Amino acid sequence: MAVYTHLGAEELAQLIAHYDVGDLVSAKGIAEGVSNSNWLIETTGADGAGARFILTMYERRIVLSDLPYFLGLLDHLSAKGCPVPRTIHDRAGDAYRMEQGKAAALIEFLPGVSPTQPTPDQARAIGEVLARLHLASGDFELSRANTMGFADNWRVLEGCGKTGLASIDADLPAMLEPARAAASFNLSALPQANIHADLFPDNVLMLGDKVTGLIDFYFACTGAMALDLATTHAAWSFDERNAFRSDVGAAILAGYESVRPLQPEERALMPQIAKGATLRFVASRAEDWLDTPDDALVTRKDPMQFVSRWHYYNDYGDQLFA
Amino acid sequence: MAVYTHLGAEELAQLIAHYDVGDLVSAKGIAEGVSNSNWLIETTGADGAGARFILTMYERRIVLSDLPYFLGLLDHLSAKGCPVPRTIHDRAGDAYRMEQGKAAALIEFLPGVSPTQPTPDQARAIGEVLARLHLASGDFELSRANTMGFADNWRVLEGCGKTGLASIDADLPAMLEPARAAASFNLSALPQANIHADLFPDNVLMLGDKVTGLIDFYFACTGAMALDLATTHAAWSFDERNAFRSDVGAAILAGYESVRPLQPEERALMPQIAKGATLRFVASRAEDWLDTPDDALVTRKDPMQFVSRWHYYNDYGDQLFA
Repeated sequence: MAVYTHLGAEELAQLIAHYDVGDLVSAKGIAEGVSNSNWLIETTGADGAGARFILTMYERRIVLSDLPYFLGLLDHLSAKGCPVPRTIHDRAGDAYRMEQGKAAALIEFLPGVSPTQPTPDQARAIGEVLARLHLASGDFELSRANTMGFADNWRVLEGCGKTGLASIDADLPAMLEPARAAASFNLSALPQANIHADLFPDNVLMLGDKVTGLIDFYFACTGAMALDLATTHAAWSFDERNAFRSDVGAAILAGYESVRPLQPEERALMPQIAKGATLRFVASRAEDWLDTPDDALVTRKDPMQFVSRWHYYNDYGDQLFA
Repeated sequence: MAVYTHLGAEELAQLIAHYDVGDLVSAKGIAEGVSNSNWLIETTGADGAGARFILTMYERRIVLSDLPYFLGLLDHLSAKGCPVPRTIHDRAGDAYRMEQGKAAALIEFLPGVSPTQPTPDQARAIGEVLARLHLASGDFELSRANTMGFADNWRVLEGCGKTGLASIDADLPAMLEPARAAASFNLSALPQANIHADLFPDNVLMLGDKVTGLIDFYFACTGAMALDLATTHAAWSFDERNAFRSDVGAAILAGYESVRPLQPEERALMPQIAKGATLRFVASRAEDWLDTPDDALVTRKDPMQFVSRWHYYNDYGDQLFA
């Protein structure tokens, strides 16, 4: 959580002047996003009634050539009524601009807060919205390969090395074997769409039980819808002590299937897909852990949290998704 | 710039429920303040028309027993029409609440952005508002001693030690002697009020040439008004290459004196006071520099910036404030 780039008031005002949104009224750097800098921007609005936006400056991990996919997907989903922020285009019609050698985009502000202890009703709403997103994203004209797929998880964990993994936790090297086995697990025969692929509670805005926004689409890709559902299930259904919350897990599945019932071939593979989904976070967190100095002022996320969830799906997946 | 405390949506909603401001609609951790965590909060408002606030959680450097002074001063100044945010009191009438063992206050949100390259017209407005603040703060019923006074500067620099100071910059130990000489410089005979004492551009919100907010009163204290003016002058009148901007410096003084002309005894001491004001930032930045590891992810502010300004006032102060 950081603001990596300093933009002064004058620079922000000049940037905003390229958009038909009125004049700058307020700008606060916000502590969200690990791969970009974000400001909550208020302007007088095109109609003078005031308007708010998120200004995002892309820092690292984001490949510039992916931006038309990420930002275009927001517009595509928003136009179809999904609760995602649309991209504000500048007067020249562009979805992003280059500032200080970095890409910057102005994005609709959506109300809502991210639940940290979701209720079953909230979980059900998330499942429903995820299914609606999948039904709406299938005909988006661009595509993007998943760069965090099962083969990537294996490559990343292998790159950490047994010694590296053991330096994080003595039980971590044992994940190399399942990651290797999952590397060749291919989901391309399952129903595909453009998926969020990172739908943690942080990336969902809600007011009560209503989903007001899905945000942070910077891992979105073209892939199996069942993988998105499994990732969401793994991200939401465990409490802060990593205990499985069966009510929340069941509500996500029920909400999803109330809009888009799983195909038999998806359902049959869900236990395996869920294990693969957890390996992604084991891998990326292990890599980040080894890349981050011990005394850095950023919070390292513990890869063991998702090792525990892998074990849960390994032991109980057949029951959960039956 | 950081958010030190994690408050989940549910915790924030519970906190907000103690105030008569409606329901929580949005909460974004903002990257402002080095000694506290801040959120930009939106609620439905007491009247349902929507309202915004800054929620501040006090982390370090803030002494709890100072909060009634800081928050009461905001209310005092706001009631007198100064552009400062008022404190929102909870239903029990309290200006702050304890949450997770830390004090938290809900403060009015004010529009505006902080200029980074102030124009003379903006500088004049700052001078005027500072003088209005001084005229309004004199009868505030509480008082607080300046903990960053001239004697403190000397104590801090001496505590860094010659070797420590030299490890930052070879020219820094030479400031020990003027700091020692200034330690006994007493401003108590000059006109007193409750002063901001840290009015850097970061702490001023403006829309065009209008000051919409003075914020971050956490160094405010009872002291000489001339010291506040000198600190503001030193903070605003030098550009990013540390060159003196005579137009900005003159505009601050002219704006201030258009509301509250300096007394002859204040004017005579301004060169000395300005040098003392720069020593405060030499001292606090040197201390922070030595306290912060080389590889920490925070930006250390260079104490030499204010050494340079000290020299400027030493060489030209007599002319500037004549």
